[in-house]
Amino acid sequence: MSYQALTERMAGISDVLGAISLLTWDARTQMPPGGAITRGRQIATLTEVAREHLVAIETRRLLDKADAETAGLKPDTIERQSIANIRAALAFHDRVPLDLLRRRANLSSDAHAAWLEARRDADFAAFAPWLERMVDLTRELADAIGGGGTRYDALLDLYEPGMTWPTLQPLMAELRAGLLPLLGDIRNAKAPRSDFLRGHFPVARQREMVRQLAQILGYDLTRGRIDDVIHPFEVAMARDDVRITARYDESWLVPGLVAALHETGHALYEQAVDPALQRGAMTCDLRTLYLVGGPSFGMHEGQSRLFENHVGKSRAFWQAHFGVVQALFPEALAGIDADTFWRGFCAVTPSPIHFGSDEVSHDLHIMVRVDLEHQMIDGDMKVADLPEAWNARMKVDLGIVVPNARDGVLQDVHWPTGQFGTFSNYTIGSMTAAQIFAHAETLPGVSDGLGRGDNAPLLKVLSQGLYRHGRRFSRAEAIARFTGQPDSVQPYLAYLDRKYRNLYAL
Amino acid sequence: MSYQALTERMAGISDVLGAISLLTWDARTQMPPGGAITRGRQIATLTEVAREHLVAIETRRLLDKADAETAGLKPDTIERQSIANIRAALAFHDRVPLDLLRRRANLSSDAHAAWLEARRDADFAAFAPWLERMVDLTRELADAIGGGGTRYDALLDLYEPGMTWPTLQPLMAELRAGLLPLLGDIRNAKAPRSDFLRGHFPVARQREMVRQLAQILGYDLTRGRIDDVIHPFEVAMARDDVRITARYDESWLVPGLVAALHETGHALYEQAVDPALQRGAMTCDLRTLYLVGGPSFGMHEGQSRLFENHVGKSRAFWQAHFGVVQALFPEALAGIDADTFWRGFCAVTPSPIHFGSDEVSHDLHIMVRVDLEHQMIDGDMKVADLPEAWNARMKVDLGIVVPNARDGVLQDVHWPTGQFGTFSNYTIGSMTAAQIFAHAETLPGVSDGLGRGDNAPLLKVLSQGLYRHGRRFSRAEAIARFTGQPDSVQPYLAYLDRKYRNLYAL
Repeated sequence: MSYQALTERMAGISDVLGAISLLTWDARTQMPPGGAITRGRQIATLTEVAREHLVAIETRRLLDKADAETAGLKPDTIERQSIANIRAALAFHDRVPLDLLRRRANLSSDAHAAWLEARRDADFAAFAPWLERMVDLTRELADAIGGGGTRYDALLDLYEPGMTWPTLQPLMAELRAGLLPLLGDIRNAKAPRSDFLRGHFPVARQREMVRQLAQILGYDLTRGRIDDVIHPFEVAMARDDVRITARYDESWLVPGLVAALHETGHALYEQAVDPALQRGAMTCDLRTLYLVGGPSFGMHEGQSRLFENHVGKSRAFWQAHFGVVQALFPEALAGIDADTFWRGFCAVTPSPIHFGSDEVSHDLHIMVRVDLEHQMIDGDMKVADLPEAWNARMKVDLGIVVPNARDGVLQDVHWPTGQFGTFSNYTIGSMTAAQIFAHAETLPGVSDGLGRGDNAPLLKVLSQGLYRHGRRFSRAEAIARFTGQPDSVQPYLAYLDRKYRNLYAL
Repeated sequence: MSYQALTERMAGISDVLGAISLLTWDARTQMPPGGAITRGRQIATLTEVAREHLVAIETRRLLDKADAETAGLKPDTIERQSIANIRAALAFHDRVPLDLLRRRANLSSDAHAAWLEARRDADFAAFAPWLERMVDLTRELADAIGGGGTRYDALLDLYEPGMTWPTLQPLMAELRAGLLPLLGDIRNAKAPRSDFLRGHFPVARQREMVRQLAQILGYDLTRGRIDDVIHPFEVAMARDDVRITARYDESWLVPGLVAALHETGHALYEQAVDPALQRGAMTCDLRTLYLVGGPSFGMHEGQSRLFENHVGKSRAFWQAHFGVVQALFPEALAGIDADTFWRGFCAVTPSPIHFGSDEVSHDLHIMVRVDLEHQMIDGDMKVADLPEAWNARMKVDLGIVVPNARDGVLQDVHWPTGQFGTFSNYTIGSMTAAQIFAHAETLPGVSDGLGRGDNAPLLKVLSQGLYRHGRRFSRAEAIARFTGQPDSVQPYLAYLDRKYRNLYAL
């Protein structure tokens, strides 16, 4: 009875978080410009409402009673894991004062505005004072969170519970050691044709392409919708209302394609949560007060990367489905066959910009930023020294000469908005995707299905083995239960090596 | 300082109500079907959050301090009126228990589902038990509200503060006495052509028509947007985000036209609230927990009726703007001139259905329902006797033989959802519109502007004299301050008599 009442209370928080999701989605896809200022306040107010609801005495009272009531259950039951999640969230909010979160939100808003101007002018010096203040405030946040490790560990844990720098750093080092020679070899090899990806691709037809590809992957449009946006994202209002967005470039097909595959991956994850968990502690990130289908940002990104790369950038997928895209753009893609299209779509094209980068460059970009922000938070990297360090590392790792700060250290929104410790989740996602996919391929029917372009058997084993659990198990636990293995970068490196040495005939 | 803190607290409620507005708008315009069940819960949860925030001890503490702090100010200052509004809302919620509101919401949901089926089958008997329960529960609500008058008075006051049956009934009787002979004369006269309003009107062009007409009336699309919907409505997320919706019938131009004019009227009202009042007790209906630009449903409806009828159904408007519509539908409207179009659009065509009725029939429909529901709540009208009473009154007042219950007593959603006491606001709106318009016409520049199809001078005097005040003055006070007159039905009757005796050459 008390556990049931506790779940009802968490369901109320889910409702508020669902409303925040809608306010956010609407702001980016539908809202008239006049709504902007009030919208920020509406989101801030509802976020505080959710927090108040969580930290209230009534929650603690129900939690203690539910704890006693379910004390005899095994630790991995939904009841015990739900209670543990709520306790962890309460501990977090008890340590992090509301005033600090408000100061962070205000600074984030001001620093974001300053960053937009500095980026426009490619003027790092104009942004540096804001970044210094943000680093200071982020250290203050890390100190408040505590947790026994370093400040950066505290930040990592916020987005990827259980992750620490001593665990992450060797994984990244191993990945980098594998990627650098692969990229070096690719740079010396003959590139496949990819010229046909640029041309004239009317937006209305790209929208139709995204809709068809998303449905081929298994996206249920009776429980979702697709809208235009500048920066694509996926967001859930509820388990049965999971929306994706796409960006279109009329002269370049890649952004639309990538949005279709990547955001659909996120959405498939959320749409498959067990309906019984949909309004409670298993679908809320109660620390970051965010409605989410999985236990961490890395786990979520793992599913988007899985469907973007392992499915959507596979030869078999395009052999089965290239006809859909070619039929929509018969002139631009005249004379192109499925294999040529697939090779062009996968082409490795290092660029100073992370956003939209190929599979081989992608994590090298990520690791540049992660190493530098780690040194800023835990080490002695000064903000003033960032551009030089950034440019040097880009030269070494990607062979890129950064032309200016706009296309270099100023390119990304994470730092201006104080999101330190989360960028690594893109790489954790890549590793997670490969590890999950390598195991899923071995399960009955999956490879055969993918071989004929049928995603359904894969989605079924993922839903059964992983997705239905929502936030019940941590990412590492979920992987261990599904694959029987601990976190490892090897499946990812093996996948990239096999695929790209074949594709580039190395 | 305390008054400021109180306003901040009310701003938080505005934020929650704004989120509820968005959840509602999205449910009707964008949401995938899967989202429906969770959406109902999200709206219910946020409504309770808003209520809790209002009735909390902290609100009462701030209210008492702000009251003392502003005790020396005049009663009609924003501060004193705001405090009075909050006190009235608190008194309401203290009297009406949450449990009763929840039971009403649940019954409303079930009765609505039963009504949909009963209406489909034109089977009043299937719906009667639900309506009986709804009448009982509505009486319970009225008893809880109290207020010293009858039960129906308590319900009227909920939507139109200060209105009572002894005040409303004579106004309605006077209106009916004026309308019946006018309608009788019209029924014996030759009808103007209106055949051209039926034909082929592609939806995409109707959307463009609505956009252009709304902008001609003064709707600011940088602070609003227009979407397709089944039942048109206007809704505000904030003062600078006021959205309208329209319904389109590809073979009939009238629904799109009416939505453009009527919903724009509502939106103009909300868009003109003083920005200083936009997040506080002056833009919230804190009793019904609703984000609203004005002090009552009747005042709001007054503005939609004003722009729909007095502006949008005026000869001058179409002499100036018929070209916009004709250019969009050159085939369907070939050979039609502005005057013919205006006469056809205004044609009096009594029908059993209230929705979409002409200006002369409109309030006769309203009064049938208001009289019957008054007798159900305060008198001895039995649910079982409703169909006969309905059909008899439709015959006497509108000369209509009701063909079946679907097009008769079952036609409308108000009773199934327990909205007793608010239907009269449509007629209060008609009266209010005429009274306000009659005075506005006398102000400098207004008649000249309207004569050349320019709405701007009218909108300016309305915004200055009425709209900017939000909920500061009651409808009756606002009218009295603007026109110098008490509530009166005479301007409305005079307007209809003059217009239709001329149009029908009576």
